Amino acid sequence: MSSEDSQDRPARLARRGFLKAGGAAIAAGASLGAGLAVPGQAQAAEGKQHAMAADPIHAVEPFYGEHQGGIVTAQQAHTYVAAFDLTTTSRDDVIKLLREWTESAARMTQGHSAAALDGAGNDSPAPDSGDVLGLGPAGLTVTFGFGPGLFTSEGKDRYGLAHLRPAALVDLPRFNGDQLIAEKTGGDLYVQACAHDAQVAFHAVRQLARQGYGKLRMRWGQAGFLSGPRGQTPRNLMGFKDGTNNPPTGDRAAMNQFVWATASDAPWMQGGTYTVVRRIRITLEHWDQMELGFQEQVFGRRKYSGAPIGKDKEFDAVDLNAQDKDGNALIPDNSHVRLSNRASNNGAQILRRSYSYNDSTNFYIERWPPWRQETEYDAGLIFIAHQADPRTGFIPINEKLAKFDMMNQFTTHVGSAIFACPPGAKAGSFVGAELFDA
Amino acid sequence: MSSEDSQDRPARLARRGFLKAGGAAIAAGASLGAGLAVPGQAQAAEGKQHAMAADPIHAVEPFYGEHQGGIVTAQQAHTYVAAFDLTTTSRDDVIKLLREWTESAARMTQGHSAAALDGAGNDSPAPDSGDVLGLGPAGLTVTFGFGPGLFTSEGKDRYGLAHLRPAALVDLPRFNGDQLIAEKTGGDLYVQACAHDAQVAFHAVRQLARQGYGKLRMRWGQAGFLSGPRGQTPRNLMGFKDGTNNPPTGDRAAMNQFVWATASDAPWMQGGTYTVVRRIRITLEHWDQMELGFQEQVFGRRKYSGAPIGKDKEFDAVDLNAQDKDGNALIPDNSHVRLSNRASNNGAQILRRSYSYNDSTNFYIERWPPWRQETEYDAGLIFIAHQADPRTGFIPINEKLAKFDMMNQFTTHVGSAIFACPPGAKAGSFVGAELFDA
Repeated sequence: MSSEDSQDRPARLARRGFLKAGGAAIAAGASLGAGLAVPGQAQAAEGKQHAMAADPIHAVEPFYGEHQGGIVTAQQAHTYVAAFDLTTTSRDDVIKLLREWTESAARMTQGHSAAALDGAGNDSPAPDSGDVLGLGPAGLTVTFGFGPGLFTSEGKDRYGLAHLRPAALVDLPRFNGDQLIAEKTGGDLYVQACAHDAQVAFHAVRQLARQGYGKLRMRWGQAGFLSGPRGQTPRNLMGFKDGTNNPPTGDRAAMNQFVWATASDAPWMQGGTYTVVRRIRITLEHWDQMELGFQEQVFGRRKYSGAPIGKDKEFDAVDLNAQDKDGNALIPDNSHVRLSNRASNNGAQILRRSYSYNDSTNFYIERWPPWRQETEYDAGLIFIAHQADPRTGFIPINEKLAKFDMMNQFTTHVGSAIFACPPGAKAGSFVGAELFDA
Repeated sequence: MSSEDSQDRPARLARRGFLKAGGAAIAAGASLGAGLAVPGQAQAAEGKQHAMAADPIHAVEPFYGEHQGGIVTAQQAHTYVAAFDLTTTSRDDVIKLLREWTESAARMTQGHSAAALDGAGNDSPAPDSGDVLGLGPAGLTVTFGFGPGLFTSEGKDRYGLAHLRPAALVDLPRFNGDQLIAEKTGGDLYVQACAHDAQVAFHAVRQLARQGYGKLRMRWGQAGFLSGPRGQTPRNLMGFKDGTNNPPTGDRAAMNQFVWATASDAPWMQGGTYTVVRRIRITLEHWDQMELGFQEQVFGRRKYSGAPIGKDKEFDAVDLNAQDKDGNALIPDNSHVRLSNRASNNGAQILRRSYSYNDSTNFYIERWPPWRQETEYDAGLIFIAHQADPRTGFIPINEKLAKFDMMNQFTTHVGSAIFACPPGAKAGSFVGAELFDA
């Protein structure tokens, strides 16, 4: 599902159709995606092909396949993630919704409107908000997931799915320091849209949310972004590189071991993954006042190079046994790198695919951390981790971090959710079909 | 101040210096901006010059000059705007702060860290948060403004400036429908950072905010973005093109007439402008349910083409006298285009330079509009308008809009501020020097 496989490059360049016709009848009657190839060809004829190929706004990710997109896909620059609570009690409603979502998501990833505009006249709402007209597909991926509430909600088996809940889809335990806000926690359905453009990502969730009106309620939504030098590990808002030790998504064996679900109790999840989302507010104002050397002790890495302390280069192996001349650990016992390292967690690994978020200013204060900052950015990290089983992945790793990580002085987990993201849909079917057919 | 003037292209390509040295002593001692030209030259030598020139991350805007950047500069894709309340009572503190801000802003626009890192060791906080290391200047502009509180605050002339307050820097009146939130309204100082990258824009405000600790308090901050097809008028979140009728920034006579301050009562503002900021929340969920034809009546324009109703093309002149066969106005009396049109406002024009915002979900409900949406995006428009005099610009236009605009059914103004943005700084001086020297 990376941007480099399965389809050849020219076929994957597309451009969100833009209607030049001014007449209302023509405009309303046309399919927004109709002439997709034409603008691209015109540009190429003008000798701009090279620039277009390099422009991420024209990137296209496949939708249908063995796995859903947005998991091992090379990370796009923007995201909008959302969770919904189902209000319908009808199993058929849910299936119908997932069918509609699948079809619309597939269309949008290929640069089309959420639904065909043919036949939608001036006297009815357009089936697409139209705010990304003229933009490209921008590498859009849409990833769907199922929360515990799809299987059992307040003790009720609303859709006859309770017996199919995988053991790996646990209710997350309370972690030390958690200060979860109900309006930013949980959810029955998960939609994660990632794209190289903020508006394209949000647009996708907005159309899907609207299709669900009457069957669901939005529980939370969250915009995120990732700024990174081309081809390098991006830095998060704390100024440190984030993702250096991720398992390589191009390593199929590693993905099969750590990311793709294989447990035999839930055959419908084969090829899927379990996703944990945590909204982690960071007191940037306080962090910025810390000495550089202290910041590096907190991470266990050098800030500018990204190298583990005691090493020279970002990708040098982390040596947890290295000592200083007095015999103390070079990488502190309560540093983030040591506590989260594979060697400290029985070989467990998770695939982090996090984004920074920046919801402007918000002057509520968490109980922890215990100081009053001079300003109150509502900014931090939308931590997103994919894994084969959270019971051996995120949960034990975060239990350790939540107790001992020096970074906790600067971070507060205010949102949390867990989802089972099923395998990719086959063309003509829908995401989650294996669950409802089981 | 556009990206096409005053400096030749090669000199304006720069790249935020990235330290490859792993040793802490070298890393901490080096100036982040030191070898700026080197990575760029290396890339050019690899034959990537064309791709670099096209990549907005490498764009550089001039900082010093007749006018501040970020006003008639071609609009970048992201912004972070913020307002601060001064807590110091010392005039010298304010001057010192403005000097430091000017110097840091100038550095950052050219791709350097906020302050030189030389001499900052491991045992002190770094003078820059480092989160944009490796990113380019990204066309960053930083624009400063002065709110009414700099001149008089709670009846006090804190800095001996009260007599220099321009008549044009009025306190904005209450507009019909206003539901202003105190934490998103007002401010003594304004910082508007715009860049082609979200993190570069936020980074600039974050460094400046930190430099002010002990002298000021953040009042509000707001991230925004603008997604647009290359070279076309961008669409806002309502799906309509926004900015079609803006006065052309390349037309110096129009800018002198409508944007640059010339009033004789405040000579220190010559070459400056007055900026109005409004945080306008939009009920996107409700808007999306409206018939296409009704949406077009609200705007007075076609949605897909952007043409005025009755015309074919986006830039066709708006004909307010056009009638249908029954003699009714083709462009409705309460449409946005008619009410805000120059011809309806004694020839007044303002330079809009707005951004969309998307602060995720927030389930508070404004009193108006009076319906309960199924979801509650905290999203909308950071309306930013520059003008020579708000008394003939934003205020009369918005008084009319606030009463009659059909769009008000979908919008709520929740934040508001006005600032006098002084002329550009001369090299070696600081933004606002003319005020303090007056």
